[in-house]
Amino acid sequence: MTQHTDVLDDENPAYWVKSVEKTFSILLAFSPDEPRLTITRAAAKADLSRAAARRFLLTLADLGYVRMDGSYFELTPRCLDIGASFLANLSLPQIAEPHLKDLAVKLNETASLCVLDGTDVVYLARVAAPRLLSVSVNVGTRFPAWATSMGRVLLAGLPESVREDFYASLNLQQFTHHSVSSIEQLRAEVDRAGRQGFCMVSQELDDGLRGVAVPVRRGNDLIAAINVSLQTHRVSEAEIARTVVPELQEAARAIADDFGGRRAISA
Amino acid sequence: MTQHTDVLDDENPAYWVKSVEKTFSILLAFSPDEPRLTITRAAAKADLSRAAARRFLLTLADLGYVRMDGSYFELTPRCLDIGASFLANLSLPQIAEPHLKDLAVKLNETASLCVLDGTDVVYLARVAAPRLLSVSVNVGTRFPAWATSMGRVLLAGLPESVREDFYASLNLQQFTHHSVSSIEQLRAEVDRAGRQGFCMVSQELDDGLRGVAVPVRRGNDLIAAINVSLQTHRVSEAEIARTVVPELQEAARAIADDFGGRRAISA
Repeated sequence: MTQHTDVLDDENPAYWVKSVEKTFSILLAFSPDEPRLTITRAAAKADLSRAAARRFLLTLADLGYVRMDGSYFELTPRCLDIGASFLANLSLPQIAEPHLKDLAVKLNETASLCVLDGTDVVYLARVAAPRLLSVSVNVGTRFPAWATSMGRVLLAGLPESVREDFYASLNLQQFTHHSVSSIEQLRAEVDRAGRQGFCMVSQELDDGLRGVAVPVRRGNDLIAAINVSLQTHRVSEAEIARTVVPELQEAARAIADDFGGRRAISA
Repeated sequence: MTQHTDVLDDENPAYWVKSVEKTFSILLAFSPDEPRLTITRAAAKADLSRAAARRFLLTLADLGYVRMDGSYFELTPRCLDIGASFLANLSLPQIAEPHLKDLAVKLNETASLCVLDGTDVVYLARVAAPRLLSVSVNVGTRFPAWATSMGRVLLAGLPESVREDFYASLNLQQFTHHSVSSIEQLRAEVDRAGRQGFCMVSQELDDGLRGVAVPVRRGNDLIAAINVSLQTHRVSEAEIARTVVPELQEAARAIADDFGGRRAISA
């Protein structure tokens, strides 16, 4: 019997199922600038042969994850299933939500909860302030951890060797002209976040926007970070440290207490 | 050359990639009651051989969609990526959000937007009322369309033959003792929703909870439904029809206007 070339290949471990990788390549080929793809275009974006792209797209269509409209394919709401299943398995977002809501109401600002995933922070819960047209951030949205207040709080909680590996792998992109421009500068900011127990990031990801974050700790475990985002013209940094940070810290304690002995998503 | 048995099988079309199906079977094997699975348990839940489950889980771990913790596997935040990509590709949730926020603030109730996917309604946007401990519903959450106010509004907008096929396939589950118990009863409710242009559902999905929904229409196309959920003790049905429904209808018009000529997710 010959080997299944679809399953095994030379560069990957023996267990590698290449079709799993191809499935995600195809699904992630759809993007806001190209939400609808022909087979040929999907093949090019996913780096697959046209024949392979066709087989994967038609299978995904039968399974309900994409739909066909003429010669175009697009993603369907079924793509939300895996993420919804991941979220339903977690108690942390459900537990955090009422506390984030309290924060959002008390401060009249948008409150969020993030965890670290690789070099990104990922939003697991978010309560938008009613008065604001919110920035387009959803549960599942990712930002580079180094550029965000929650990311720096989470980086500060990593073991030093892991954090240094993280720095070594970084490619600092200048999102605004306020973004930190060197690892030394970033290291100083992360260390400061660790020492003072909160982190403020102003306009490094987007002009006019400021984030203030604190860690959510259970004993020695850092289980998440929460933050509020503020518009820079509203309050001074000193005012934020005096008024907003204590509210955040109280909410973080309440979340940790409610979370109790449950399994965290990240430790 | 032999055929790739992993790719082709007898019961499915020639293009069928069985590994795509297996990928989703494994990912959907994780659930709130069993968020952590051993290889053996994942194999049983996904109906795969132990060897296959092992190869898929290890590949998914390398790709970052699951993580290993001792002999257990669990989903990771990366599972949110495909859904986040689907949402980012859509303009409807972004367009609807400020209008849902207005509604939530004006009525002090949670406001949502849903589309139909198969026999379910799927939440694409949701703004929770600050005063309420919210029901555990997220973007991506599904409910059986027939049991919800948004679902009935969307069913009322289907072509009659499609709707009749839908009724024929239904298995009515009694969520509460208020749930409709026959297709005839459901048909009457859906027809009423179509005639009056809104739908009220009281305690059919959960005790104490009432939903009021209206369609979001662009010309003859029904592109979504929006609703607010209310606690039954707060206001009478007559009061809701008089005060809440007009607010919902105004928000639906505003969403449709802002949506303009864009492509809808469902037509």
